[in-house]
Amino acid sequence: MEIHPECIVCLFKLGLRAARAATNDEKLQREVLARLAAEIPAVPAGSISPEIGQRVQRIVREVTGETDPFLREKRRSNEFALAHLPELRRRVESADDALLEAIRLAVAGNVIDLAVGSGYDLEGAIAESLEVPFAIFDYEPFTLALERARRLLYLADNAGEIVFDRLLVEELVRRGKAVTCAVRGGPAINDATAEDARRAGLHEIAEVIDTGTDLPSVLLAAVDDRFRERYLGADLVISKGQGNYEGLSEEPGPLACLLKAKCAPVARDLGVERGALVLRFRDAPRAEGRP
Amino acid sequence: MEIHPECIVCLFKLGLRAARAATNDEKLQREVLARLAAEIPAVPAGSISPEIGQRVQRIVREVTGETDPFLREKRRSNEFALAHLPELRRRVESADDALLEAIRLAVAGNVIDLAVGSGYDLEGAIAESLEVPFAIFDYEPFTLALERARRLLYLADNAGEIVFDRLLVEELVRRGKAVTCAVRGGPAINDATAEDARRAGLHEIAEVIDTGTDLPSVLLAAVDDRFRERYLGADLVISKGQGNYEGLSEEPGPLACLLKAKCAPVARDLGVERGALVLRFRDAPRAEGRP
Repeated sequence: MEIHPECIVCLFKLGLRAARAATNDEKLQREVLARLAAEIPAVPAGSISPEIGQRVQRIVREVTGETDPFLREKRRSNEFALAHLPELRRRVESADDALLEAIRLAVAGNVIDLAVGSGYDLEGAIAESLEVPFAIFDYEPFTLALERARRLLYLADNAGEIVFDRLLVEELVRRGKAVTCAVRGGPAINDATAEDARRAGLHEIAEVIDTGTDLPSVLLAAVDDRFRERYLGADLVISKGQGNYEGLSEEPGPLACLLKAKCAPVARDLGVERGALVLRFRDAPRAEGRP
Repeated sequence: MEIHPECIVCLFKLGLRAARAATNDEKLQREVLARLAAEIPAVPAGSISPEIGQRVQRIVREVTGETDPFLREKRRSNEFALAHLPELRRRVESADDALLEAIRLAVAGNVIDLAVGSGYDLEGAIAESLEVPFAIFDYEPFTLALERARRLLYLADNAGEIVFDRLLVEELVRRGKAVTCAVRGGPAINDATAEDARRAGLHEIAEVIDTGTDLPSVLLAAVDDRFRERYLGADLVISKGQGNYEGLSEEPGPLACLLKAKCAPVARDLGVERGALVLRFRDAPRAEGRP
Protein backbone atom coordinates (compact mmCIF):
# COMPACT_ATOMS: atom_id res chain seq x y z
CA MET A 1 0.00 0.00 0.00
CA GLU A 2 1.68 3.14 -1.25
CA ILE A 3 2.46 6.02 1.08
CA HIS A 4 -0.23 8.75 1.28
CA PRO A 5 0.11 12.42 2.28
CA GLU A 6 -1.41 11.62 5.69
CA CYS A 7 1.32 9.04 6.26
CA ILE A 8 3.94 11.77 6.12
CA VAL A 9 2.27 13.66 8.98
CA CYS A 10 1.95 10.39 10.90
CA LEU A 11 5.66 9.62 10.36
CA PHE A 12 6.61 12.97 11.88
CA LYS A 13 4.40 12.12 14.87
CA LEU A 14 6.22 8.81 15.10
CA GLY A 15 9.57 10.58 14.79
CA LEU A 16 8.69 12.90 17.65
CA ARG A 17 7.44 10.05 19.82
CA ALA A 18 10.53 7.95 19.14
CA ALA A 19 12.87 10.90 19.70
CA ARG A 20 11.16 11.70 23.01
CA ALA A 21 11.30 8.09 24.10
CA ALA A 22 15.03 8.15 23.36
CA THR A 23 16.05 11.51 24.86
CA ASN A 24 14.79 14.50 26.81
CA ASP A 25 17.12 16.81 24.88
CA GLU A 26 14.89 19.01 22.69
CA LYS A 27 17.85 19.85 20.46
CA LEU A 28 18.36 16.20 19.64
CA GLN A 29 14.60 15.75 19.17
CA ARG A 30 14.65 18.60 16.65
CA GLU A 31 17.66 17.08 14.94
CA VAL A 32 15.78 13.79 14.54
CA LEU A 33 12.86 15.64 12.92
CA ALA A 34 15.14 17.73 10.73
CA ARG A 35 16.95 14.63 9.49
CA LEU A 36 13.64 12.90 8.85
CA ALA A 37 12.45 16.01 6.97
CA ALA A 38 15.61 15.99 4.88
CA GLU A 39 14.81 12.45 3.68
CA ILE A 40 11.14 13.02 2.79
CA PRO A 41 11.67 14.79 -0.56
CA ALA A 42 13.81 11.84 -1.74
CA VAL A 43 11.27 9.12 -0.86
CA PRO A 44 10.93 7.06 -4.06
CA ALA A 45 7.48 6.67 -5.62
CA GLY A 46 5.92 3.36 -4.58
CA SER A 47 7.49 3.39 -1.12
CA ILE A 48 5.41 2.11 1.75
CA SER A 49 5.02 4.03 4.99
CA PRO A 50 6.79 1.41 7.18
CA GLU A 51 9.96 1.91 5.11
CA ILE A 52 10.06 5.49 6.37
CA GLY A 53 9.15 4.20 9.83
CA GLN A 54 12.29 2.08 9.63
CA ARG A 55 14.29 5.20 8.68
CA VAL A 56 12.83 7.04 11.69
CA GLN A 57 14.17 4.38 14.01
CA ARG A 58 17.60 4.46 12.32
CA ILE A 59 17.77 8.24 12.53
CA VAL A 60 16.90 8.12 16.24
CA ARG A 61 19.66 5.55 16.68
CA GLU A 62 22.22 7.70 14.85
CA VAL A 63 21.25 10.96 16.58
CA THR A 64 20.72 9.69 20.14
CA GLY A 65 22.58 6.36 20.29
CA GLU A 66 19.35 4.69 21.48
CA THR A 67 18.81 1.44 19.58
CA ASP A 68 15.43 0.50 21.00
CA PRO A 69 13.56 3.59 22.21
CA PHE A 70 10.28 1.75 22.78
CA LEU A 71 11.82 -1.11 24.76
CA ARG A 72 10.23 -0.04 28.05
CA GLU A 73 6.85 0.51 26.38
CA LYS A 74 7.03 -2.88 24.73
CA ARG A 75 7.81 -4.61 28.01
CA ARG A 76 5.00 -2.74 29.74
CA SER A 77 2.56 -3.75 26.98
CA ASN A 78 3.60 -7.38 27.37
CA GLU A 79 3.12 -7.33 31.15
CA PHE A 80 -0.23 -5.61 30.78
CA ALA A 81 -1.45 -8.18 28.26
CA LEU A 82 -0.01 -11.14 30.19
CA ALA A 83 -2.00 -10.08 33.25
CA HIS A 84 -5.16 -10.51 31.17
CA LEU A 85 -4.15 -13.81 29.51
CA PRO A 86 -5.76 -16.35 31.89
CA GLU A 87 -9.16 -14.64 31.84
CA LEU A 88 -9.02 -14.23 28.04
CA ARG A 89 -8.07 -17.90 27.60
CA ARG A 90 -11.13 -18.91 29.60
CA ARG A 91 -13.22 -16.79 27.21
CA VAL A 92 -11.85 -18.70 24.22
CA GLU A 93 -12.27 -22.07 25.91
CA SER A 94 -15.91 -21.44 26.80
CA ALA A 95 -16.90 -19.82 23.48
CA ASP A 96 -19.27 -21.55 21.03
CA ASP A 97 -16.78 -20.83 18.26
CA ALA A 98 -13.34 -20.84 19.88
CA LEU A 99 -11.60 -19.90 16.62
CA LEU A 100 -13.77 -16.84 16.10
CA GLU A 101 -13.39 -15.77 19.73
CA ALA A 102 -9.60 -16.07 19.44
CA ILE A 103 -9.66 -14.07 16.19
CA ARG A 104 -11.69 -11.33 17.83
CA LEU A 105 -9.32 -11.18 20.79
CA ALA A 106 -6.30 -11.08 18.48
CA VAL A 107 -7.83 -8.05 16.75
CA ALA A 108 -8.58 -6.48 20.15
CA GLY A 109 -4.86 -6.83 20.91
CA ASN A 110 -4.10 -4.88 17.74
CA VAL A 111 -5.19 -1.76 19.62
CA ILE A 112 -1.99 -1.93 21.71
CA ASP A 113 -0.14 0.19 19.22
CA LEU A 114 1.98 3.17 20.05
CA ALA A 115 2.63 3.69 16.38
CA VAL A 116 -0.86 5.04 15.71
CA GLY A 117 -2.59 6.22 18.87
CA SER A 118 -0.98 7.78 21.89
CA GLY A 119 -3.04 5.97 24.50
CA TYR A 120 -5.23 2.93 24.52
CA ASP A 121 -8.23 1.68 26.41
CA LEU A 122 -7.67 -2.05 26.33
CA GLU A 123 -10.72 -3.15 28.27
CA GLY A 124 -12.91 -0.98 26.02
CA ALA A 125 -11.16 -2.29 22.93
CA ILE A 126 -11.71 -5.89 23.97
CA ALA A 127 -15.38 -5.27 24.69
CA GLU A 128 -15.75 -3.55 21.32
CA SER A 129 -13.90 -6.21 19.35
CA LEU A 130 -16.09 -8.90 20.83
CA GLU A 131 -19.31 -7.11 19.87
CA VAL A 132 -18.78 -4.89 16.83
CA PRO A 133 -19.40 -6.69 13.54
CA PHE A 134 -16.40 -6.94 11.20
CA ALA A 135 -16.60 -4.60 8.20
CA ILE A 136 -14.84 -7.22 6.06
CA PHE A 137 -15.43 -10.75 7.31
CA ASP A 138 -14.11 -13.45 4.97
CA TYR A 139 -14.56 -16.02 7.72
CA GLU A 140 -15.94 -18.81 5.56
CA PRO A 141 -13.22 -18.85 2.86
CA PHE A 142 -10.65 -18.38 5.63
CA THR A 143 -11.84 -21.37 7.64
CA LEU A 144 -12.03 -23.48 4.46
CA ALA A 145 -8.42 -22.57 3.63
CA LEU A 146 -7.47 -23.23 7.24
CA GLU A 147 -8.98 -26.73 7.15
CA ARG A 148 -6.85 -27.63 4.13
CA ALA A 149 -3.66 -25.99 5.44
CA ARG A 150 -0.94 -27.81 7.33
CA ARG A 151 1.91 -25.30 7.58
CA LEU A 152 0.76 -21.91 8.83
CA LEU A 153 2.84 -18.76 8.99
CA TYR A 154 1.59 -16.25 11.56
CA LEU A 155 2.97 -12.71 11.18
CA ALA A 156 2.93 -10.96 14.55
CA ASP A 157 2.52 -7.21 14.82
CA ASN A 158 3.18 -5.38 18.11
CA ALA A 159 4.55 -6.24 21.51
CA GLY A 160 1.70 -6.74 23.97
CA GLU A 161 -0.58 -7.68 21.11
CA ILE A 162 1.58 -10.77 20.62
CA VAL A 163 0.27 -12.09 23.95
CA PHE A 164 -3.23 -11.99 22.47
CA ASP A 165 -1.90 -13.64 19.32
CA ARG A 166 -0.86 -16.54 21.50
CA LEU A 167 -4.51 -17.40 22.10
CA LEU A 168 -5.14 -17.67 18.37
CA VAL A 169 -1.93 -19.64 17.84
CA GLU A 170 -2.99 -22.00 20.67
CA GLU A 171 -6.31 -22.56 18.89
CA LEU A 172 -4.54 -23.21 15.57
CA VAL A 173 -2.19 -25.72 17.24
CA ARG A 174 -5.19 -27.38 18.93
CA ARG A 175 -6.54 -27.92 15.41
CA GLY A 176 -3.39 -29.84 14.50
CA LYS A 177 -1.61 -27.12 12.53
CA ALA A 178 2.16 -26.63 12.45
CA VAL A 179 2.47 -22.93 13.23
CA THR A 180 5.49 -20.74 12.64
CA CYS A 181 5.36 -17.26 14.18
CA ALA A 182 7.37 -14.46 12.62
CA VAL A 183 8.56 -11.35 14.46
CA ARG A 184 10.83 -8.47 13.40
CA GLY A 185 14.55 -9.09 13.01
CA GLY A 186 15.42 -6.05 15.16
CA PRO A 187 13.87 -3.16 17.07
CA ALA A 188 11.12 -1.71 14.84
CA ILE A 189 9.03 0.87 16.70
CA ASN A 190 6.90 -1.14 19.15
CA ASP A 191 6.68 -4.21 16.95
CA ALA A 192 7.25 -7.61 18.51
CA THR A 193 10.77 -9.02 18.33
CA ALA A 194 12.17 -12.36 19.53
CA GLU A 195 12.19 -11.10 23.13
CA ASP A 196 8.46 -10.35 23.00
CA ALA A 197 7.65 -13.72 21.42
CA ARG A 198 9.54 -15.40 24.25
CA ARG A 199 7.77 -13.25 26.83
CA ALA A 200 4.43 -14.30 25.34
CA GLY A 201 5.55 -17.95 25.56
CA LEU A 202 5.12 -18.50 21.82
CA HIS A 203 8.25 -20.65 21.61
CA GLU A 204 6.50 -23.23 23.84
CA ILE A 205 3.78 -23.87 21.27
CA ALA A 206 5.19 -22.81 17.90
CA GLU A 207 8.37 -22.25 15.99
CA VAL A 208 9.48 -18.61 16.16
CA ILE A 209 11.46 -17.04 13.32
CA ASP A 210 12.20 -13.45 12.37
CA THR A 211 11.95 -11.49 9.13
CA GLY A 212 15.67 -10.75 9.05
CA THR A 213 15.03 -7.01 9.01
CA ASP A 214 13.96 -4.25 11.36
CA LEU A 215 11.28 -3.06 8.91
CA PRO A 216 7.99 -2.59 10.85
CA SER A 217 6.17 -4.56 8.16
CA VAL A 218 6.64 -7.58 5.93
CA LEU A 219 7.80 -6.65 2.45
CA LEU A 220 8.95 -9.65 0.43
CA ALA A 221 11.63 -7.55 -1.26
CA ALA A 222 13.09 -6.60 2.14
CA VAL A 223 13.01 -9.85 4.16
CA ASP A 224 15.87 -12.33 4.24
CA ASP A 225 15.95 -15.47 2.09
CA ARG A 226 15.13 -17.80 4.97
CA PHE A 227 11.98 -15.89 5.85
CA ARG A 228 10.95 -15.50 2.21
CA GLU A 229 11.17 -19.27 1.71
CA ARG A 230 8.97 -19.81 4.71
CA TYR A 231 6.49 -17.24 3.48
CA LEU A 232 6.26 -18.76 0.01
CA GLY A 233 6.18 -22.30 1.37
CA ALA A 234 3.35 -21.73 3.84
CA ASP A 235 -0.07 -23.19 3.05
CA LEU A 236 -1.68 -20.13 4.63
CA VAL A 237 -0.31 -16.86 5.97
CA ILE A 238 -2.12 -15.00 8.76
CA SER A 239 -1.02 -11.36 8.92
CA LYS A 240 -1.76 -9.18 11.90
CA GLY A 241 -2.07 -5.40 11.94
CA GLN A 242 -1.67 -2.38 9.68
CA GLY A 243 2.10 -2.49 9.29
CA ASN A 244 2.06 -5.98 7.80
CA TYR A 245 -0.98 -5.09 5.68
CA GLU A 246 0.83 -2.10 4.21
CA GLY A 247 3.62 -4.37 3.00
CA LEU A 248 1.44 -7.28 1.85
CA SER A 249 -1.76 -5.65 0.57
CA GLU A 250 -0.90 -6.49 -3.06
CA GLU A 251 0.28 -10.03 -2.34
CA PRO A 252 -1.93 -12.77 -3.81
CA GLY A 253 -2.24 -15.28 -0.95
CA PRO A 254 -3.37 -17.55 0.50
CA LEU A 255 -3.26 -14.66 2.94
CA ALA A 256 -5.59 -13.64 5.76
CA CYS A 257 -5.19 -10.06 7.00
CA LEU A 258 -6.56 -9.47 10.46
CA LEU A 259 -6.55 -5.87 11.65
CA LYS A 260 -8.31 -2.84 12.94
CA ALA A 261 -8.16 -0.06 10.31
CA LYS A 262 -6.75 2.61 12.58
CA CYS A 263 -5.90 5.32 10.08
CA ALA A 264 -7.69 6.91 7.15
CA PRO A 265 -5.31 5.75 4.37
CA VAL A 266 -5.52 2.06 5.39
CA ALA A 267 -9.30 2.35 5.85
CA ARG A 268 -9.64 3.89 2.37
CA ASP A 269 -7.42 1.23 0.84
CA LEU A 270 -9.65 -1.46 2.33
CA GLY A 271 -12.86 0.43 1.53
CA VAL A 272 -14.01 0.51 5.16
CA GLU A 273 -14.63 3.15 7.81
CA ARG A 274 -11.77 4.17 10.04
CA GLY A 275 -11.80 2.00 13.16
CA ALA A 276 -13.42 -0.94 11.36
CA LEU A 277 -12.43 -4.54 12.14
CA VAL A 278 -11.21 -6.54 9.18
CA LEU A 279 -10.66 -10.21 8.36
CA ARG A 280 -9.69 -10.12 4.70
CA PHE A 281 -8.84 -13.35 2.91
CA ARG A 282 -7.13 -13.53 -0.48
CA ASP A 283 -6.29 -16.62 -2.43
CA ALA A 284 -5.39 -15.57 -5.94
CA PRO A 285 -2.85 -17.62 -7.89
CA ARG A 286 0.66 -16.17 -7.62
CA ALA A 287 1.67 -14.48 -10.88
CA GLU A 288 4.63 -15.93 -12.76
CA GLY A 289 7.96 -14.33 -11.97
CA ARG A 290 6.84 -12.83 -8.66
CA PRO A 291 9.18 -13.45 -5.75
CA MET B 1 8.41 31.85 21.54
CA GLU B 2 10.91 29.60 19.84
CA ILE B 3 9.83 26.65 17.76
CA HIS B 4 9.63 23.30 19.60
CA PRO B 5 9.84 19.76 18.22
CA GLU B 6 6.05 19.41 18.59
CA CYS B 7 5.60 22.48 16.38
CA ILE B 8 7.25 20.66 13.49
CA VAL B 9 4.68 17.86 13.65
CA CYS B 10 1.92 20.48 13.92
CA LEU B 11 3.27 22.32 10.86
CA PHE B 12 3.08 19.15 8.79
CA LYS B 13 -0.53 18.75 9.94
CA LEU B 14 -1.15 22.32 8.84
CA GLY B 15 0.61 21.64 5.54
CA LEU B 16 -1.61 18.64 4.88
CA ARG B 17 -4.77 20.55 5.83
CA ALA B 18 -3.82 23.52 3.65
CA ALA B 19 -2.83 21.28 0.74
CA ARG B 20 -6.11 19.40 0.98
CA ALA B 21 -8.10 22.61 1.18
CA ALA B 22 -6.31 23.75 -1.99
CA THR B 23 -6.45 20.58 -4.09
CA ASN B 24 -7.78 17.03 -4.25
CA ASP B 25 -4.69 15.89 -6.14
CA GLU B 26 -2.72 13.62 -3.79
CA LYS B 27 0.41 14.09 -5.89
CA LEU B 28 0.30 17.85 -5.31
CA GLN B 29 -0.49 17.31 -1.62
CA ARG B 30 2.61 15.14 -1.36
CA GLU B 31 4.63 17.75 -3.20
CA VAL B 32 3.55 20.40 -0.69
CA LEU B 33 4.69 18.18 2.19
CA ALA B 34 7.95 17.27 0.44
CA ARG B 35 8.74 20.94 -0.16
CA LEU B 36 7.88 21.77 3.44
CA ALA B 37 10.11 18.90 4.57
CA ALA B 38 12.95 20.21 2.42
CA GLU B 39 12.82 23.53 4.27
CA ILE B 40 12.75 22.15 7.82
CA PRO B 41 16.46 21.30 8.17
CA ALA B 42 17.33 24.90 7.22
CA VAL B 43 15.02 26.58 9.77
CA PRO B 44 17.28 29.05 11.63
CA ALA B 45 17.58 28.76 15.40
CA GLY B 46 15.28 31.24 17.11
CA SER B 47 12.57 30.96 14.44
CA ILE B 48 8.98 31.00 15.59
CA SER B 49 6.44 28.45 14.43
CA PRO B 50 4.22 30.99 12.55
CA GLU B 51 7.17 31.80 10.29
CA ILE B 52 7.05 28.22 9.04
CA GLY B 53 3.25 28.50 8.91
CA GLN B 54 3.76 31.40 6.52
CA ARG B 55 6.08 29.23 4.41
CA VAL B 56 3.42 26.49 4.34
CA GLN B 57 0.95 28.91 2.82
CA ARG B 58 3.51 30.12 0.28
CA ILE B 59 4.43 26.57 -0.71
CA VAL B 60 0.74 25.72 -1.20
CA ARG B 61 0.43 28.81 -3.37
CA GLU B 62 3.44 27.84 -5.49
CA VAL B 63 2.48 24.18 -5.86
CA THR B 64 -1.29 24.52 -6.37
CA GLY B 65 -1.80 28.15 -7.45
CA GLU B 66 -4.32 28.57 -4.58
CA THR B 67 -3.63 31.85 -2.77
CA ASP B 68 -6.18 31.51 0.01
CA PRO B 69 -6.95 27.83 0.68
CA PHE B 70 -8.95 28.54 3.84
CA LEU B 71 -11.14 31.26 2.30
CA ARG B 72 -14.30 29.15 2.40
CA GLU B 73 -13.58 28.04 5.97
CA LYS B 74 -12.97 31.62 7.04
CA ARG B 75 -16.23 32.79 5.52
CA ARG B 76 -18.11 29.91 7.11
CA SER B 77 -16.56 30.73 10.51
CA ASN B 78 -17.65 34.36 10.15
CA GLU B 79 -21.23 33.43 9.24
CA PHE B 80 -21.37 30.96 12.10
CA ALA B 81 -20.14 33.52 14.61
CA LEU B 82 -22.32 36.32 13.19
CA ALA B 83 -25.40 34.18 13.73
CA HIS B 84 -24.53 34.10 17.44
CA LEU B 85 -23.64 37.79 17.75
CA PRO B 86 -26.99 39.26 18.90
CA GLU B 87 -27.45 36.70 21.68
CA LEU B 88 -23.82 37.11 22.79
CA ARG B 89 -24.17 40.90 22.81
CA ARG B 90 -27.18 40.59 25.12
CA ARG B 91 -25.00 38.50 27.44
CA VAL B 92 -22.40 41.27 27.59
CA GLU B 93 -25.03 43.99 28.08
CA SER B 94 -26.70 42.18 30.97
CA ALA B 95 -23.50 41.06 32.71
CA ASP B 96 -22.42 42.50 36.08
CA ASP B 97 -18.97 43.09 34.63
CA ALA B 98 -19.47 43.75 30.91
CA LEU B 99 -15.70 44.00 30.28
CA LEU B 100 -15.01 40.62 31.83
CA GLU B 101 -17.91 39.01 30.01
CA ALA B 102 -16.64 40.42 26.71
CA ILE B 103 -13.12 39.16 27.51
CA ARG B 104 -14.46 35.69 28.26
CA LEU B 105 -16.43 35.61 25.01
CA ALA B 106 -13.41 36.83 23.05
CA VAL B 107 -11.44 33.89 24.44
CA ALA B 108 -14.31 31.54 23.62
CA GLY B 109 -14.03 32.76 20.03
CA ASN B 110 -10.37 31.78 20.07
CA VAL B 111 -11.53 28.18 19.79
CA ILE B 112 -12.54 28.81 16.16
CA ASP B 113 -9.15 27.82 14.93
CA LEU B 114 -8.48 25.45 12.08
CA ALA B 115 -4.78 25.81 12.67
CA VAL B 116 -4.82 23.77 15.86
CA GLY B 117 -7.88 21.54 16.10
CA SER B 118 -9.73 19.94 13.23
CA GLY B 119 -13.21 20.54 14.58
CA TYR B 120 -14.70 22.80 17.17
CA ASP B 121 -17.65 22.73 19.50
CA LEU B 122 -18.49 26.41 19.76
CA GLU B 123 -21.46 26.17 22.11
CA GLY B 124 -19.41 23.99 24.45
CA ALA B 125 -16.44 26.33 24.18
CA ILE B 126 -18.56 29.35 25.05
CA ALA B 127 -20.10 27.60 28.05
CA GLU B 128 -16.64 26.54 29.20
CA SER B 129 -15.04 29.95 28.73
CA LEU B 130 -17.79 31.55 30.77
CA GLU B 131 -17.34 29.17 33.68
CA VAL B 132 -13.80 27.83 33.81
CA PRO B 133 -11.47 30.01 35.89
CA PHE B 134 -8.53 31.58 34.03
CA ALA B 135 -5.18 29.89 34.79
CA ILE B 136 -3.46 33.27 34.45
CA PHE B 137 -5.74 36.18 35.26
CA ASP B 138 -3.98 39.55 35.39
CA TYR B 139 -7.33 41.30 35.34
CA GLU B 140 -6.55 43.97 37.92
CA PRO B 141 -3.30 45.29 36.38
CA PHE B 142 -4.93 45.02 32.96
CA THR B 143 -7.97 47.10 33.94
CA LEU B 144 -5.69 49.66 35.65
CA ALA B 145 -3.64 49.98 32.45
CA LEU B 146 -6.84 50.15 30.45
CA GLU B 147 -8.18 53.03 32.55
CA ARG B 148 -5.06 55.08 31.84
CA ALA B 149 -4.85 54.15 28.15
CA ARG B 150 -6.32 56.24 25.35
CA ARG B 151 -5.01 54.63 22.15
CA LEU B 152 -5.55 50.89 22.09
CA LEU B 153 -4.23 48.47 19.51
CA TYR B 154 -6.23 45.26 19.26
CA LEU B 155 -4.49 42.39 17.44
CA ALA B 156 -7.09 40.07 15.94
CA ASP B 157 -6.43 36.38 15.49
CA ASN B 158 -8.73 34.20 13.38
CA ALA B 159 -11.69 34.72 11.09
CA GLY B 160 -14.91 33.89 12.94
CA GLU B 161 -13.21 34.72 16.23
CA ILE B 162 -13.00 38.30 15.02
CA VAL B 163 -16.80 38.54 15.31
CA PHE B 164 -16.43 37.76 19.02
CA ASP B 165 -13.61 40.29 19.24
CA ARG B 166 -16.12 42.87 18.07
CA LEU B 167 -17.97 42.54 21.38
CA LEU B 168 -14.81 43.36 23.31
CA VAL B 169 -13.94 46.22 20.95
CA GLU B 170 -17.49 47.59 21.40
CA GLU B 171 -16.99 47.52 25.17
CA LEU B 172 -13.62 49.29 24.85
CA VAL B 173 -15.17 51.97 22.61
CA ARG B 174 -18.06 52.34 25.07
CA ARG B 175 -15.38 53.19 27.64
CA GLY B 176 -14.16 56.04 25.45
CA LYS B 177 -11.09 54.38 23.98
CA ALA B 178 -9.78 54.98 20.48
CA VAL B 179 -9.37 51.44 19.19
CA THR B 180 -7.34 50.33 16.21
CA CYS B 181 -7.83 46.74 15.09
CA ALA B 182 -5.04 44.99 13.24
CA VAL B 183 -5.51 42.05 10.91
CA ARG B 184 -3.07 40.17 8.65
CA GLY B 185 -1.80 41.86 5.50
CA GLY B 186 -2.68 38.85 3.33
CA PRO B 187 -4.05 35.30 3.52
CA ALA B 188 -2.41 33.62 6.52
CA ILE B 189 -4.00 30.23 7.28
CA ASN B 190 -7.43 31.05 8.75
CA ASP B 191 -6.32 34.31 10.34
CA ALA B 192 -8.53 37.36 9.95
CA THR B 193 -7.75 39.69 7.06
CA ALA B 194 -9.39 42.98 6.02
CA GLU B 195 -12.32 41.09 4.50
CA ASP B 196 -13.06 39.37 7.80
CA ALA B 197 -12.80 42.62 9.76
CA ARG B 198 -15.31 44.16 7.37
CA ARG B 199 -17.59 41.13 7.66
CA ALA B 200 -17.48 41.49 11.46
CA GLY B 201 -18.36 45.19 11.06
CA LEU B 202 -15.24 46.34 12.89
CA HIS B 203 -14.73 49.26 10.51
CA GLU B 204 -18.00 50.74 11.84
CA ILE B 205 -16.62 51.10 15.36
CA ALA B 206 -12.83 51.17 15.04
CA GLU B 207 -9.99 51.91 12.70
CA VAL B 208 -8.82 48.76 10.91
CA ILE B 209 -5.22 48.39 9.77
CA ASP B 210 -3.11 45.43 8.74
CA THR B 211 0.31 44.17 9.71
CA GLY B 212 1.68 44.53 6.19
CA THR B 213 2.58 40.85 6.03
CA ASP B 214 0.88 37.47 5.64
CA LEU B 215 2.69 36.10 8.71
CA PRO B 216 0.10 34.35 10.95
CA SER B 217 1.47 36.23 13.94
CA VAL B 218 2.80 39.64 14.91
CA LEU B 219 6.58 39.77 14.88
CA LEU B 220 7.94 43.31 15.13
CA ALA B 221 10.85 42.41 12.86
CA ALA B 222 8.42 41.28 10.14
CA VAL B 223 5.64 43.89 10.14
CA ASP B 224 5.70 47.01 7.97
CA ASP B 225 6.83 50.41 9.30
CA ARG B 226 3.31 51.80 9.50
CA PHE B 227 2.11 48.96 11.69
CA ARG B 228 5.26 49.01 13.84
CA GLU B 229 4.74 52.72 14.54
CA ARG B 230 1.18 52.02 15.62
CA TYR B 231 2.33 49.17 17.81
CA LEU B 232 5.01 51.18 19.55
CA GLY B 233 2.76 54.24 19.85
CA ALA B 234 -0.17 52.42 21.46
CA ASP B 235 -0.86 52.97 25.15
CA LEU B 236 -1.92 49.37 25.43
CA VAL B 237 -1.83 46.39 23.07
CA ILE B 238 -4.40 43.61 23.38
CA SER B 239 -3.20 40.47 21.61
CA LYS B 240 -5.54 37.61 20.81
CA GLY B 241 -4.62 33.98 20.34
CA GLN B 242 -1.61 31.71 20.17
CA GLY B 243 -0.18 32.92 16.87
CA ASN B 244 0.21 36.49 18.13
CA TYR B 245 1.51 35.24 21.47
CA GLU B 246 4.23 33.21 19.75
CA GLY B 247 5.52 36.37 18.06
CA LEU B 248 5.11 38.71 21.04
CA SER B 249 5.82 36.54 24.10
CA GLU B 250 9.15 38.30 24.74
CA GLU B 251 7.84 41.82 24.12
CA PRO B 252 7.80 44.04 27.19
CA GLY B 253 4.41 45.73 27.01
CA PRO B 254 2.07 47.27 27.94
CA LEU B 255 0.70 44.10 26.42
CA ALA B 256 -2.28 41.95 27.35
CA CYS B 257 -2.29 38.46 25.84
CA LEU B 258 -5.69 36.83 25.76
CA LEU B 259 -5.78 33.22 24.64
CA LYS B 260 -6.62 29.63 25.19
CA ALA B 261 -3.40 27.58 25.43
CA LYS B 262 -4.33 25.02 22.82
CA CYS B 263 -1.04 23.22 22.37
CA ALA B 264 1.57 21.80 24.73
CA PRO B 265 4.49 24.11 23.76
CA VAL B 266 2.46 27.29 24.33
CA ALA B 267 1.02 25.89 27.57
CA ARG B 268 4.53 25.01 28.80
CA ASP B 269 5.83 28.45 27.83
CA LEU B 270 3.07 30.06 29.88
CA GLY B 271 3.39 27.54 32.72
CA VAL B 272 -0.25 26.44 32.48
CA GLU B 273 -2.10 23.26 31.60
CA ARG B 274 -3.02 22.64 28.00
CA GLY B 275 -6.50 24.07 27.36
CA ALA B 276 -6.13 26.74 30.05
CA LEU B 277 -7.58 30.23 29.59
CA VAL B 278 -5.07 33.03 29.90
CA LEU B 279 -5.18 36.80 30.40
CA ARG B 280 -1.53 37.69 30.78
CA PHE B 281 -0.53 41.33 31.25
CA ARG B 282 3.03 42.64 30.92
CA ASP B 283 4.21 46.16 31.46
CA ALA B 284 7.99 46.13 31.67
CA PRO B 285 9.95 49.15 30.40
CA ARG B 286 11.11 48.69 26.81
CA ALA B 287 14.85 48.02 26.69
CA GLU B 288 17.04 50.57 24.92
CA GLY B 289 17.73 49.92 21.29
CA ARG B 290 14.79 47.56 20.86
CA PRO B 291 12.69 48.23 17.83
